[in-house]
Amino acid sequence: MDKSESTKIEMGESSKLERKLGKAPLLGSPSHAISSVPIVANNKKVGNYKKGISIFDLILRIASVATSIGAAVGMATAGETLPFFTQFFQFEAGYDDLPTFTFFVIAMSIVVAYLVLSIPFSIVCIARSHVVAPRLLLIIFDTAIITLTTSAAGASTAIVYLAHNGNQDANWLAFCNQFGDFCQTTSGAVVAAFITIVLLLILIVLSAIALKRH
Amino acid sequence: MDKSESTKIEMGESSKLERKLGKAPLLGSPSHAISSVPIVANNKKVGNYKKGISIFDLILRIASVATSIGAAVGMATAGETLPFFTQFFQFEAGYDDLPTFTFFVIAMSIVVAYLVLSIPFSIVCIARSHVVAPRLLLIIFDTAIITLTTSAAGASTAIVYLAHNGNQDANWLAFCNQFGDFCQTTSGAVVAAFITIVLLLILIVLSAIALKRH
Repeated sequence: MDKSESTKIEMGESSKLERKLGKAPLLGSPSHAISSVPIVANNKKVGNYKKGISIFDLILRIASVATSIGAAVGMATAGETLPFFTQFFQFEAGYDDLPTFTFFVIAMSIVVAYLVLSIPFSIVCIARSHVVAPRLLLIIFDTAIITLTTSAAGASTAIVYLAHNGNQDANWLAFCNQFGDFCQTTSGAVVAAFITIVLLLILIVLSAIALKRH
Repeated sequence: MDKSESTKIEMGESSKLERKLGKAPLLGSPSHAISSVPIVANNKKVGNYKKGISIFDLILRIASVATSIGAAVGMATAGETLPFFTQFFQFEAGYDDLPTFTFFVIAMSIVVAYLVLSIPFSIVCIARSHVVAPRLLLIIFDTAIITLTTSAAGASTAIVYLAHNGNQDANWLAFCNQFGDFCQTTSGAVVAAFITIVLLLILIVLSAIALKRH
């Protein structure tokens, strides 16, 4: 009778008892129960860590919007008209004279549009640092966009190099002596595109590290 | 006396009791203990999933070694000597006539070297599908290498386009009419580089998905 009462009490206070057991390290209980407190602490730490990465991601994203706008606008507004002209010709250079530069302007416009649209996703990553889907989306599209940016920047670099140095073997003459300002502006746009590439690279590495800490 | 004995028994069988408590869903015990069985099953499933991704990663990596070797060797061996010559000149074209093509050969050689060196890491990912460090290393370096590949491919595309079409505004003449074989080979090398880029893109997306399932 006394025993059954003792058992009854024990069952009634089971959750309390269990909590006690869970904290006792020498009773051979499963590790889940023992380590529940450290797990929570660790999750919180990882959460802060991921939030820090997400904030840095947002800052880098805004910076890369700025540099890509600089690249697109710089190239699109590059143009120079020489101060002398003949009866039939006026010597002028613009980005649309070279198909590669046109590609550069289109590609960088797409990059700007993508980066602006990606900012809300980056903010979602800050607000809910444990959500994985937007981070995965960002890393996939960032990789696609870095490819677009790099191809535009690489192609334009090749043309800018030709414009500066020419090529004797192919008999392509440099025209930067005549169109100095045009060359200067297009070179600046290409440099801005390369800065965008570096920022995107850091963004992808950060996203990968944040995914790892899932 | 009877009560204390009951308590003693209870303490002695604590681990058994606790296991019983842990399996009972209505006792308000922490979720760790309840869900221990499904977690193990899920881990195994995720492990298989990640192993599948790793095997696919290895296959893609070997394929990209092949395409990047094709690109590097194709460009390096591109050359054509015209069958007529004057007293002073022999008309020939090689990749080293154009600095962009030289850059292409060097960049693609680096890509080949990296991809070959990355195969052991990919194998480690298959053997130990839960290890995160090699996967993170691969995704970071893959991203760097895709940038290098794309810049080389983009720059060479711009030059190949010029060689085919020329540019009237800059007064750069096409030379593919004279050096048809040379243009053909370099175009093929550029296409091989773009296939490498696509394979690397898939590799990065796969690595990101595998990291997510950590």
